[in-house]
Amino acid sequence: MKEQFITFFKKLREQIIGEFESLEPSKRLERTKWDHKGGGGGEMGILRGDIFEKAGVNFSQVMGETFPGADGSGPYFASGVSLITHMHNPKLPTVHMNVRYISTESGFWVGGGYDLTPMGFIDEQDTRHFHQSAKNALDKLDPTFYPRFMQNAKEYFYIPHRKKERGVGGIFFDHFGSDDAEMAFKLVKATGESFIEAIMPIYRKKINLPYTELEKDIQLHQRAHYAEFNLVYDRGTQFGFKSGGNPDAILASMPPLAKW
Amino acid sequence: MKEQFITFFKKLREQIIGEFESLEPSKRLERTKWDHKGGGGGEMGILRGDIFEKAGVNFSQVMGETFPGADGSGPYFASGVSLITHMHNPKLPTVHMNVRYISTESGFWVGGGYDLTPMGFIDEQDTRHFHQSAKNALDKLDPTFYPRFMQNAKEYFYIPHRKKERGVGGIFFDHFGSDDAEMAFKLVKATGESFIEAIMPIYRKKINLPYTELEKDIQLHQRAHYAEFNLVYDRGTQFGFKSGGNPDAILASMPPLAKW
Repeated sequence: MKEQFITFFKKLREQIIGEFESLEPSKRLERTKWDHKGGGGGEMGILRGDIFEKAGVNFSQVMGETFPGADGSGPYFASGVSLITHMHNPKLPTVHMNVRYISTESGFWVGGGYDLTPMGFIDEQDTRHFHQSAKNALDKLDPTFYPRFMQNAKEYFYIPHRKKERGVGGIFFDHFGSDDAEMAFKLVKATGESFIEAIMPIYRKKINLPYTELEKDIQLHQRAHYAEFNLVYDRGTQFGFKSGGNPDAILASMPPLAKW
Repeated sequence: MKEQFITFFKKLREQIIGEFESLEPSKRLERTKWDHKGGGGGEMGILRGDIFEKAGVNFSQVMGETFPGADGSGPYFASGVSLITHMHNPKLPTVHMNVRYISTESGFWVGGGYDLTPMGFIDEQDTRHFHQSAKNALDKLDPTFYPRFMQNAKEYFYIPHRKKERGVGGIFFDHFGSDDAEMAFKLVKATGESFIEAIMPIYRKKINLPYTELEKDIQLHQRAHYAEFNLVYDRGTQFGFKSGGNPDAILASMPPLAKW
């Protein structure tokens, strides 16, 4: 079970790295391995290029004696891929994706999803394409998935102190699992694979759009709101800090540059 | 009682604004008033100049039906001055100061302090002067204050996930009060007034020091750690968010520009 997920996560990560690097004329993703104090570790991947101002594509596989979340206790194992992009061009939205498998003494569950955050420049066509890609993939498994997971993302990616959603949404699910292991794997697989279809056409289409200094400035201010969400509300960040993870890996999602 | 604090806070704030503006060749602090939903409000003051890349010097005076912290309940009143500086020149440290008065049904207390954060360039002489200013002022009230409050700051301004202190410390106290109202006021007054003596000579001395692009880059990365502390750990920020305060006023402490 566990091995099936780990194999998929590693493959998915390499596939995404390949897609991102295909947009970069010369720069390549830099890999840094790290160890987890409780056992296991991961590989951080950071791409700083001409198109991707900073993209983080990380794999981790960690274990410990005491599960650091509220939803479990005792020994645990957690593995997953997490990804974020911050683009040079403010017309290109930021995207975030995560898929994870967690097991504790009482069972296992999966979680994940992806969501899109335009940095000041919302394109309705992009939003529709992004959501449609998720819906197409999930409808094949269960027609109730997309509406539920879309609603989850809407609620989760909300910035209370700014009284706004972080971006234009996507899908998000958590604690899916123990009772239907086969469906849990299918769901994680469909999420990971449809993510590529959801984001790549948007990037390919807009990669050469011109932009102004003012538009760049707007992006940098929007990024500050993104940073606020990640540090104040994001469960993955909190989990990472509490489990004593590598701060640079946990904060690989932070913007390369942000303005307040 | 309450009025005595409010009068002092307003006077202290104007004095500090005058000191900061005296270093700026032409730019002046911009003031924005805001209302609090439970009653009262405040005035945010932001100085963006040639020396101060961004300084926030805020006054607030708010009330509400339900105290938003763990250390009280029911109706409350809170007033204070909070201040932060982010300097253009990376050789000039960031400084933070806060003094506050809070009353609930069960009594009142005061809190506050100030601390210094060099942005990559620690100057032992500055650190000594900063701490000595605090010690001189507090020793006149009670010789146990400085050692205790210095230790508080050391523990409070710690960034667990980075495993380091935020800066080189200072003083910090909280829940000082109800049993000795006169001393509470003296303590707040000594803190506010000695702050000016603690920071201004450092700024005056270093204002014209040259710096390189690399030194500026180091500063921007250090600022990211500062932003992390404020968003993840700072009680004032958490209190502000929970009490439904103005996000721009609460986050006036955030760096104008930060790099991850």
